[in-house]
This record gives sequence, C-alpha cells and structure tokens, in this order.
Amino acid sequence: MNRFAIYHAMDSAYCFPVSENEMSIRLRTAKGDIKNAWIIYESKYVIQTERKKCEMERTFTGKDFDYFTVRLRLSDTRLAYVFYLYDGEDYYYFSEDGVTKTYDYATSFYNFFQYPYINKADLLPEVEWTKRSCVYQIFVDRFNMGDESKDISYINMKWGDKPTPQSFAGGDLKGITQKLDHIKSLGTDTVYLTPVFRSVSNHKYDISDYYLVDPQFGSNEDLKELVDNAHAKGMRIILDAVFNHCSEKLSQFQDVIKNGKDSRYHDWFIIRGDRPDKELMNYEMFAACEYMPKFNTSNPEVMDFLIGIGKHYVTEYGIDGWRLDVSDEVSHYFWRLFRKAIKNENPQCAIIGENWHDASSYLRGDQYDSIMNYAFTKACLDYFAHDKLDAQGMADRLNDILARNNDVVNSMMMNLLDSHDTNRIFSEVNKDKDRMYSALALLYMFPGMPCIFQGTETLTEGGYDPDCRRCMDWKGIEEGKYKESIDVIRELAKFRKEHVPSDAKVKIYAENDVLILKRYTDEEEIELYISDGKAPCFLAKSRQR
Amino acid sequence: MNRFAIYHAMDSAYCFPVSENEMSIRLRTAKGDIKNAWIIYESKYVIQTERKKCEMERTFTGKDFDYFTVRLRLSDTRLAYVFYLYDGEDYYYFSEDGVTKTYDYATSFYNFFQYPYINKADLLPEVEWTKRSCVYQIFVDRFNMGDESKDISYINMKWGDKPTPQSFAGGDLKGITQKLDHIKSLGTDTVYLTPVFRSVSNHKYDISDYYLVDPQFGSNEDLKELVDNAHAKGMRIILDAVFNHCSEKLSQFQDVIKNGKDSRYHDWFIIRGDRPDKELMNYEMFAACEYMPKFNTSNPEVMDFLIGIGKHYVTEYGIDGWRLDVSDEVSHYFWRLFRKAIKNENPQCAIIGENWHDASSYLRGDQYDSIMNYAFTKACLDYFAHDKLDAQGMADRLNDILARNNDVVNSMMMNLLDSHDTNRIFSEVNKDKDRMYSALALLYMFPGMPCIFQGTETLTEGGYDPDCRRCMDWKGIEEGKYKESIDVIRELAKFRKEHVPSDAKVKIYAENDVLILKRYTDEEEIELYISDGKAPCFLAKSRQR
Repeated sequence: MNRFAIYHAMDSAYCFPVSENEMSIRLRTAKGDIKNAWIIYESKYVIQTERKKCEMERTFTGKDFDYFTVRLRLSDTRLAYVFYLYDGEDYYYFSEDGVTKTYDYATSFYNFFQYPYINKADLLPEVEWTKRSCVYQIFVDRFNMGDESKDISYINMKWGDKPTPQSFAGGDLKGITQKLDHIKSLGTDTVYLTPVFRSVSNHKYDISDYYLVDPQFGSNEDLKELVDNAHAKGMRIILDAVFNHCSEKLSQFQDVIKNGKDSRYHDWFIIRGDRPDKELMNYEMFAACEYMPKFNTSNPEVMDFLIGIGKHYVTEYGIDGWRLDVSDEVSHYFWRLFRKAIKNENPQCAIIGENWHDASSYLRGDQYDSIMNYAFTKACLDYFAHDKLDAQGMADRLNDILARNNDVVNSMMMNLLDSHDTNRIFSEVNKDKDRMYSALALLYMFPGMPCIFQGTETLTEGGYDPDCRRCMDWKGIEEGKYKESIDVIRELAKFRKEHVPSDAKVKIYAENDVLILKRYTDEEEIELYISDGKAPCFLAKSRQR
Repeated sequence: MNRFAIYHAMDSAYCFPVSENEMSIRLRTAKGDIKNAWIIYESKYVIQTERKKCEMERTFTGKDFDYFTVRLRLSDTRLAYVFYLYDGEDYYYFSEDGVTKTYDYATSFYNFFQYPYINKADLLPEVEWTKRSCVYQIFVDRFNMGDESKDISYINMKWGDKPTPQSFAGGDLKGITQKLDHIKSLGTDTVYLTPVFRSVSNHKYDISDYYLVDPQFGSNEDLKELVDNAHAKGMRIILDAVFNHCSEKLSQFQDVIKNGKDSRYHDWFIIRGDRPDKELMNYEMFAACEYMPKFNTSNPEVMDFLIGIGKHYVTEYGIDGWRLDVSDEVSHYFWRLFRKAIKNENPQCAIIGENWHDASSYLRGDQYDSIMNYAFTKACLDYFAHDKLDAQGMADRLNDILARNNDVVNSMMMNLLDSHDTNRIFSEVNKDKDRMYSALALLYMFPGMPCIFQGTETLTEGGYDPDCRRCMDWKGIEEGKYKESIDVIRELAKFRKEHVPSDAKVKIYAENDVLILKRYTDEEEIELYISDGKAPCFLAKSRQR
C-alpha cells in the first residue's frame, strides 16, 4: 500500500459531526491503492475491549487520491476509531501513529483517532433552504432603473454602453423589485445584491454610511419593500457585508484624518503614525486602494459596530443572508462573534464567505456556512473554456474540490461560473453556446446552490472589471432575443427542482472522454453526460434505481 | 517526486502567524524525496507580477516524511505563495491545485496558497514563562500533610501503604507550602496540582463546590498562602479545571434530582428524561461514572458559571495557569469563551489542555496554549520501556510529533513521562536507572516544559491508578536515600537553564543506533546522545558553534 497518501485528521472535513449523534468520517488513500477500507470504532471508554466494524464507501476519486467515507450513528458520541485497510495483498491498521501491520488496543488510548464528544455548541446546522435554492446575483447599478422620479444627474453612461470604472448607469432597488418576476421565472429564488449602502462609487464596496441605502439606489423603504416583495413571492434576499474595509468618507475615518492620534477612532483602523496619509499609504487598506481603509476588526468597538450593522438588517429588514466581502482578510475571531449574533437573530440566515481559496478553517461550524466556490469556477474555466483539463482531469478536479469540505458545507456551497469579479463565462468559452450550456448544466447538477450572475440568461459577454459589469438588455429580453438561453436556465432549474433531491449523493467520473455526473438517492438517479466537445450528450436524464 | 506525500494547509501548523508580521510555513514531502524546496511569495495583490523566493530548511524528518520550514518576515501580511521543488531531476510547483510542472501566475488568484491577513485577534501569543519553566505535578492527598491540627478522622491509610481507590492519606495544601523549597531545589519552578476543591473523593475530580477548598486539603486561605509563598520564591501555581463534569453532590445537580424537569438547572446537564436516574444512567457523565454528571457546556448559564470560576482563581488568588481536565470532551465554543475571559484577566496565565490525541483544532490561538503531551509519553514508553522503537524509530516518532504543531505551541508544550493517569515510568522501564535517567534527559532537552510527577525524584514505582498515586517518601528523602536520582534531576534542570536557550532550535536523528538530540542557536549547541542500551552516552554537552 502507499503509506504516503494516507491522510486523516480529526475535527476537519475528514471527521465532522453532522448532527448530535452522527459523525461523518473520511479517509484519503492513493488512487486505486486500497480495495477495502473499514472503520473500527467504539466509545473511547470501551474500545479496549469492545469494537464495531463498518466498511467505508469510496465516494470521491480525485487526481491522485481516493476518498473513502462513512457516516456513523452513535449512541455514545465519545468516538474512538482506527482504520483497517486491505490493498489486495495485505491488511493494515492506520492510527495516529501511522500505518502498522498490527494494532495494540490495550494502549489504544494513546493513539486511536477520536472525536471526543459531539457538543451541540460546535455543530454546523444546515441552513435548510440553501440546498434547495438557486441564486441570482445582481450588480445593482447595471441591473434595472425602476425609480423614474429620482435625481438622475449622477448617471453618466447610456444604458447598454460599455462601462468604465467611473460609470453610473442608474440601476436601483425599485428596479430590482420590478424584475423579481423575471428572476423567479428563471427558477432563481434567491437574490444576492452587491452592496447597496451609501457610497460614492458605482460598486459601493467603499461604504460611508452602513445604515443608509445609497440615494442612487433608492431609500431604506425601497430596501424593505424589495425584501417584503421577495418574501411574498417565496424568494430570498442576500446582502453584501463589506466589513473588511470602508470608505475614507466614513465619519469615523474622517474623524481620524481631522484629529489624528487624539481621535477616539484612531484604533478603529490600522495606522502607522498619528494620522492616515494617502501619499505615504501609512495605513492598512483594501488591496492598494487608499480610499478604502481597512477596519481594525481586532478592536472590540469596531466588532460591536459591524455586528450591530449585521444584526440590524436581519432583524429590521428580514434579509435571508449575508455574503461577506473579502472575508478571508477579517479575523476568525470576528466572524465567530458575527455568526453568533446573526444566528441568534435567525438561525436560517445564511453566512457565505468570499474566500477564493481553501476555507476549511472558516467552515467548521463556528464562522461561515459556506463560501462562493471559486475553486469550482476555476475548474469550469480549465475544462469548458481553456481545455486545460480533459474529462478525466475535470472529474478528478471536481472530486478533489468536493473532498475539501464536509457534506454539510458542500450542500450549502454557492457555486458560480462568473461574477462581478471575473471575466464573463460566455466570453471565456469564446461564445460557444454548447460549452456555455454544458457549464450551466454542470452548475445546476452540482451539490450546493447554483449562482448565476445577472445577464447569464442573455449570454452577456465581458472581460475583467469593469467590462464584466455591463447593463442588462431588458429590451432584448422583451423582444425574445434570448429565448433559447433563458429556456435552458429555466429547464435546468426545473429539472433540478423536480429530479435532484437536495440530499442526493453525487458521483463524478469520466468514460471515453465523457464527463459523467450522477446525483442519486436510494430511489432515483439522474445523470449528466458532457462529451469531449463540451456539449451535453443529455442535459440530464432520470431513472428509477 | 512522490506527489502522494506532499501536504500543506493554510491556517494550521503548516501555515501559522508567529507575530503580527511573521509567518511560519511548513511543507511535508516524502522522506528523502525532495532535495531543495523554495517558497515563492508576495502580497496576494502583487504576486501576479512580482515575487520573492526563499529556500526552506528541512527541519524535521519523521517515519515517512520530511518537513521543510521557513519563517517569513512580511511588510504586507496578505501572503500568497506557491512551493517550488527540486527532486534531483526535475523542478515542480505545488499550489492548491496540486503538483504541476508549470505554474500560471496570471490566474494564480484562483489557486495560490495564502494566509490572507495577519489579524492580531487570531494570534497565539507566547506565555513567555512556560518555555523557561520546569513543572512538578502534585497529587495532593499523597504529597505531604502539613496541617497537624486538622480533623484527621477521614484518613484511612497509613502514609506509605499501597493506596486503593478509596484511600485517604492526609496530604494538604499546607504540606505543599512546606515543601516548596524541596520542589524548587529540584529546579522545578511551576507546581501543577490535581483538583483542590470540595469533593468526597481522594482525587477530587468530582467537585461539589468550586469556590471552596476541600477541608481535607485545608482552607481557601491555605490556597492563597500557597500561591503567595510560591510567587515569593519565584515559583508558579497551576490548578486543575474540572469543567467537563462535576460531582453528583453539586447543588445544581441535586436540585435536578429533587425537582426533575421543574428544576431551573435541568438544562445544566444532559438528561434523557425528566430526572437523572443512576440505575438507568440516563444522563451524560464522565466515562461510566454515574457520580460524575457531565455539564451541558452548550448552555450559556453553565458557561457563565464555569468561566466565573476560572476567572475567580486568576483574579482573587493569582494562579498562573489552568490545566483543563478532559478538555477534549468540552466544546471548542466553550474554550474560546474561557480563553478570552482568562487572558483578559492575565495574558500570562497558561491554559493547558488534557488532550491525549492530536489537538491541533484546539491549538490555533483561540483555545488552549498547549496540552499535556501524551504523544511524547507514548513515544518514550515505546522506546525506553518496551523496545518497540529503535533509535531511528524514536527519532522519526519525535520528529513527527514536533511536526504536529507549530513552533509556538511546541515551545509551551507540557511534556511528561508519567502522571496520576498512567503507570509510573520507573515501573515501565522495569526499574532500569539508565533508561530512567535517559528518559529524563530527553524530557529536559525536548522543546517545551518538562513536567515530572511527584515521586519521580524518588524513583517511585506504581502501576495504573490507584497504584500510580502513592505517597511521597519524605523520610527516605531526608535520609539521603534518593541522592542519586535527585541529583540527576537537579543537574538536568540546571543544565537546561544554563545551556538550552528557550528559543533553541531542535534537531533529532539517529546514527548507528544512537539517538541524537541537538538544541542550538546561532551561538551555541548542546547535544544529547542516547545509546542502544538506553543509557545516555553524554547527558549533554555544550560547544560553541
């Protein structure tokens, strides 16, 4: 057997409580190396003398590794275990002391694996609706202008022209409320909005007043109306929490500019010296944007301030989730407090981080529910757009991505093909509709929530920011110009809803350069085949098992 | 190269901030496989165009793996990186997407490794004194009786007889205060006491009043006097926090027994049904001890109660640390609150978990400072006592143990050869003094705090509990019966203090069946050689580098 490949770790995606009496256990081995894997387990207080044995299932196969999984229902949750492996020739044990030919249960209290006790306070309860939901992302300024009576003097581009970083097109919250039926007709029932609060920019990621909807986008009443209307239609609203940084115009930062060290807000930011100096860039900021000073989220006053905002929109406006901007640069400590405060108000409020990279240390039940799955995005680009992966390579990659996190997190994951922060997927696939629809089919069949960026239904093109932030073509939609692509999305959502139970298991593999994704329960199974040319052989089919 | 062996993970012992501008990065590779490893890094916002490169050092070599390490001082702590590896034939990159022959920096924002930002709130600051300290563990009832005036009617064994689970020998806090000079003379300057609070048992792990010192052990004033006397001598006191469970005699549990579901304390415990029933064992408890009901530490009231106790002895008595009993069965959530409360009172109060197994999910800066290092204990048993490991096997094991945690945790680790919960080490080595002294030499030279259990200096024998909890032989000590073993311990502590700087690096390997441990700084180096017969060739020697 390949000892080097074996991996397991407690309190990780490899060993995770899924309920108060159920553990999910995963073991990584070299691809094709281990024929059978068993878990030998019992309460840590009796494993010296009594043991149970359960065979594990090979659930994922990645580039180099197989991943075996088992779920254990426990009456005593003080779980001790070792693995027992058969490679076709020999049998091995795997414990904290590594791979051995024999295992001494008499001294096993020193080196068994364990999950010491399932404490309710450490669980990651599912946000039940997420796995049944499809998400529609809106970049507000470019979506739809609904308030004809507002002061439009700030608008400096013609709707539909190519945007620049300084363009204002006029989209607003009333415009979104007016288009909820369009969004719902696509099968997308959750709307994620980029920031809506007071800000001088078109993207509004530099916020100067977190309690005020930006007048360009409307009023606080408009926000309430949007949420209420969405709820009335069985839809949900997710807002963007920009808590890593703010606008230089935030009154607290202005106070520090004015009063330097004497400002009571000096420690709200991270400043080297008495006073922030844009020339010297002597303070922490987002990227290299001196107009976006970084909050010192290690300061309890700042934590209170930001958590107060987080709670406000949950309790007063009834929003259904927060997407956390640049969340990986904010402390774990902060997100733990944030989670507790938000879930205390509404346990079903989803918390979705913007972590482009491995986020396992944020996804243990104490911080986010899930993340925007940019690893999935990258896999789709490599496979559908840039032919860096063949079907086998893509199957491997998707399996490795699923193995990064536990099933609960995977079921809440926000999967996406593009966003306001990437090139548009339709441009990436070089306007090849087959590839585009195949990518969408994969997105809709993959575990987690599919999330499409506004304009996906109109096959919107676009390069990197600002080009990916183009205006919606409502005229074209009305004229039926995008019937085919809109129908594809509708059908995918419908199929997903009707034939892919939210707790369906997943199997992804390749055969003869065809990528195959199965979702299945004990009763039913659907299959998606994507051919070498990246066109789906079948969008999906369903059969009784 | 061996792709299967390569391992790295952000926000773990493999990627850990050691200060506000310094990262420690580790990479695991197959043993002997990689000749050179470099880290290629920069701020995540510039790595597409600019990069730094730094060679990593092979710091540990375990059974199957090499561990390369590097410390990076950063001006911008938003660290992005990939590894660059040379196996003697080819060069490889290693990123979140695995091992590749080329790497595309243009899309690296999708798959570089990263530590997104060093937030002060997530740091694990060193408890500075721990790494310079040696610990002496006391099982109070068997240590020394100092209060001649107390009611001794509870004492039911003759001092020095073999203890049973029900034996009371009379040891108390005054007895410890009287012997502080003895303890200090051994070079041990921190005293860790098993529980001292109100309890009907000799071990007092079943506490019925956390605010009262058990009368058998003396008064609360005696505890204050002990701490004050220790501090006056430059010594420190660590108490035992039994927060997983309590005694059935705790008034809150008694209230539930009396009032069942109607008790306001029903949810303080985890009871299946209206009323705890010892016959049915229908409630959670420690092990299978129905007289030790488990606290529901997911209940905020219980958390407040226990954290209040934790703070009380730090603020009112000035204790220097808490050892956390059965800490792995208590929630992460609780330990995070506990840490915050304790460190808020005294950042230099050490928090040491009793986790016998991999505790990495408790050691990220948010919960404990370190643990009782039972993995080290097991390695010593396998090598010194049971000859399950040869010198090479022992070197491998110790390296693998060091690689489990980051350097900061390792420097605070409480290493031990035995305790009140194991067989005595002198019995385990079959009363072979060479092996005993060699094991002690290793203990004292290993990174972290050496911790000896009372009676180590008198070569006390003993099997498992209760036999490992024998009385101290003060008469024998006075008569000079244990001069040799006492001198060994004194010399080891003296040598450690004089020649092993607390920030000395460590190198452990084997040559010709000799186990070699080096501790070194840029200026100095000490070496410990332990021969095949398990006698130290040199206890240790020092030379200029």
